Amino acid sequence: MKKDNDKIDENGQALNWDYLVPGIPDELFCRDTVPLTKEEIRCLSLSRLRLQPHHTVLDVGAGSGSVSIECALLLRQGRVIAVEREDRALVLLQKNARRFGVPNLEIIRGAAPAALAAVKHADRIFIGGTGGQMQAILEVCSRILAPGGIVVLNCILLESLTAALEHLARLPFSEAQVISAAIARGQRLGGKTMLSPLNPVFIVSAQKSEGGP
Amino acid sequence: MKKDNDKIDENGQALNWDYLVPGIPDELFCRDTVPLTKEEIRCLSLSRLRLQPHHTVLDVGAGSGSVSIECALLLRQGRVIAVEREDRALVLLQKNARRFGVPNLEIIRGAAPAALAAVKHADRIFIGGTGGQMQAILEVCSRILAPGGIVVLNCILLESLTAALEHLARLPFSEAQVISAAIARGQRLGGKTMLSPLNPVFIVSAQKSEGGP
Amino acid sequence: MKKDNDKIDENGQALNWDYLVPGIPDELFCRDTVPLTKEEIRCLSLSRLRLQPHHTVLDVGAGSGSVSIECALLLRQGRVIAVEREDRALVLLQKNARRFGVPNLEIIRGAAPAALAAVKHADRIFIGGTGGQMQAILEVCSRILAPGGIVVLNCILLESLTAALEHLARLPFSEAQVISAAIARGQRLGGKTMLSPLNPVFIVSAQKSEGGP
Amino acid sequence: MKKDNDKIDENGQALNWDYLVPGIPDELFCRDTVPLTKEEIRCLSLSRLRLQPHHTVLDVGAGSGSVSIECALLLRQGRVIAVEREDRALVLLQKNARRFGVPNLEIIRGAAPAALAAVKHADRIFIGGTGGQMQAILEVCSRILAPGGIVVLNCILLESLTAALEHLARLPFSEAQVISAAIARGQRLGGKTMLSPLNPVFIVSAQKSEGGP
Repeated sequence: MKKDNDKIDENGQALNWDYLVPGIPDELFCRDTVPLTKEEIRCLSLSRLRLQPHHTVLDVGAGSGSVSIECALLLRQGRVIAVEREDRALVLLQKNARRFGVPNLEIIRGAAPAALAAVKHADRIFIGGTGGQMQAILEVCSRILAPGGIVVLNCILLESLTAALEHLARLPFSEAQVISAAIARGQRLGGKTMLSPLNPVFIVSAQKSEGGP
Repeated sequence: MKKDNDKIDENGQALNWDYLVPGIPDELFCRDTVPLTKEEIRCLSLSRLRLQPHHTVLDVGAGSGSVSIECALLLRQGRVIAVEREDRALVLLQKNARRFGVPNLEIIRGAAPAALAAVKHADRIFIGGTGGQMQAILEVCSRILAPGGIVVLNCILLESLTAALEHLARLPFSEAQVISAAIARGQRLGGKTMLSPLNPVFIVSAQKSEGGP
Repeated sequence: MKKDNDKIDENGQALNWDYLVPGIPDELFCRDTVPLTKEEIRCLSLSRLRLQPHHTVLDVGAGSGSVSIECALLLRQGRVIAVEREDRALVLLQKNARRFGVPNLEIIRGAAPAALAAVKHADRIFIGGTGGQMQAILEVCSRILAPGGIVVLNCILLESLTAALEHLARLPFSEAQVISAAIARGQRLGGKTMLSPLNPVFIVSAQKSEGGP
Repeated sequence: MKKDNDKIDENGQALNWDYLVPGIPDELFCRDTVPLTKEEIRCLSLSRLRLQPHHTVLDVGAGSGSVSIECALLLRQGRVIAVEREDRALVLLQKNARRFGVPNLEIIRGAAPAALAAVKHADRIFIGGTGGQMQAILEVCSRILAPGGIVVLNCILLESLTAALEHLARLPFSEAQVISAAIARGQRLGGKTMLSPLNPVFIVSAQKSEGGP
């Protein structure tokens, strides 16, 4: 949509993305070669996060920051803590934070679970990547998360998906819910429309038990 | 998630659905046998609507009202006009409007495009069903819609999808965007997880030309 | 296609299904409530089996027999051994075997892996269901299978899929290949076409090492 | 599977692909940048073709020839006529025909429908591409096709899909059947498995009326 592209300000001014619903177009993010949570997958993931205005959201494996930024823009009295270990991604994360003007986004440099030591509390946790530390990260997250809080994971690896389900079942969470999202986007080809598929993503969500520690 | 179900009040009190993001679970709506826009499809469709607080949203073929209600809850200074022709759906629409407590939702009984005569302006239009009147409805919508406004359609019929693309191309709209959403939900089966597919839906969106009449 | 339905003979005469390619329509099988490997999934699975005329195919968890019968019809000098434990399925399996007239199909009643004791050799193995005995069944199959032979599994449970991959990696097989098949069939609705999705199936295949025992 | 790759003969000897089922791996074809009907889509399409040993198959828009070659290998007393207009594709088609050793494959150079003038009869027709001539090609095909014969189309453009359905409904064909095939292949990534989607394809098939001209 043209209006969105007009909003890109090359002079370092923050974009004024002021919609009530998630779904920032992928091309509004600086992204280089770092993988980005695609617009449609972000919408579905944010929906499962069930955000409320005062929430503290933890984004583990934040990458170039698209989920963190969507959350930070929606949370008017809340804040987002983004954890990322890769230098290349951190540069993009900071660039994107500036581009969208999100003062309520805090960045922690380091690898989870170790880098989560300083995080004492979260109402919602999004896990975009675990770097092979699924079990340890979910255990730490189950402690950080407030009772009744929600964790949402994006899994692209089949083995990560079933590992997440297995670990969540052992931890104090409600039964996990899974969405398999096979999204394709229409692409114009000679005045006609072909479908160009995104990589399939599994969106896992679970709620921490209310009576939990 | 248990918390959501706890919120169902059988005594006629409105549910207090107070999240910042769309995605009301399907089972929170009264739905009978009237088709319902499924949670994930609603999220993706609302995202494409790019809602802002003051917007007037027109919902054509509102059915049991799930999209209207999601919009009405998000629009703090705006309002929603739901148009529906079927009696059975209208009963559900009114029930659901009461259940979720949305004073900013107005219901028009009748079939589009005729029933749209009273609607002078909309910032956003969602078309969930056209009852075979795709072309006439899109023409009326292109007049009602504010310049820069957005129309979003959900198509389940292949022929409706290509008809929508064809008509939008002739009307003063930007190039239409298409999302093909093949969503499946995990279902527990003997402690394991199988995927249960929703009907595939095509989500079409287009922006009315800024300089349009 | 009308011709196919014409071939159903209610008088107990065998159907004359004489095509060179797999893909018997689902409705030509007696199926009751026993799950059936759907036509499209059967085609993809049989393709991965790489059948040759003289092959012996073992079908573990044969259900109502659709895969066994497709194989038996294609194997002109070969044969099929179908193993099934449920009485209800066995009745259908026998009915379907008669319906399609496949003298080269042998049925073993019993649960795998125990029921596989009498099977000394197979060139190809299809596993439609494991009844929770994935690991034991794959171990026995890896012994029965000829060097260079191929095993194909249909998994509908995510946990079975990753378990199959894990076990195959430990046994003397080539790296497993996975196909995720999300098939939808067009259905006519008021002269137009909607897509009606089949349950997604994962088709796993692996080849036994040539130099294996 | 290693065995398949071993069969590639760099010295110009024909590959000995001697399986009873379709599904030649994509990488066994010379393909350059010409689009190739992917293995899984070929299996599903050939299944719908319902081949019999003596059939004459017409392949319109044969491209690099993967469907023609699969058919030619299966038809022991039949033959395949491949029509292709692009020089680059024709070179590959000939290379692939030599590679797989298919004496019963005839190549016609030219654009359909004009290039179909010499074809008097076909039992089965596969249409992989129409170059914008869908209507004219289907009309000619409906004349060439034997009564009770079958046409199968692969559509990647939404508009071609609905145009095909519309034209088939006007011509002497049974009601068209549609398969929407969203296939993803497992790819190993750090010892785990991600799903890599193929472009979605719609497979349309219809049978010419028995009593037709």
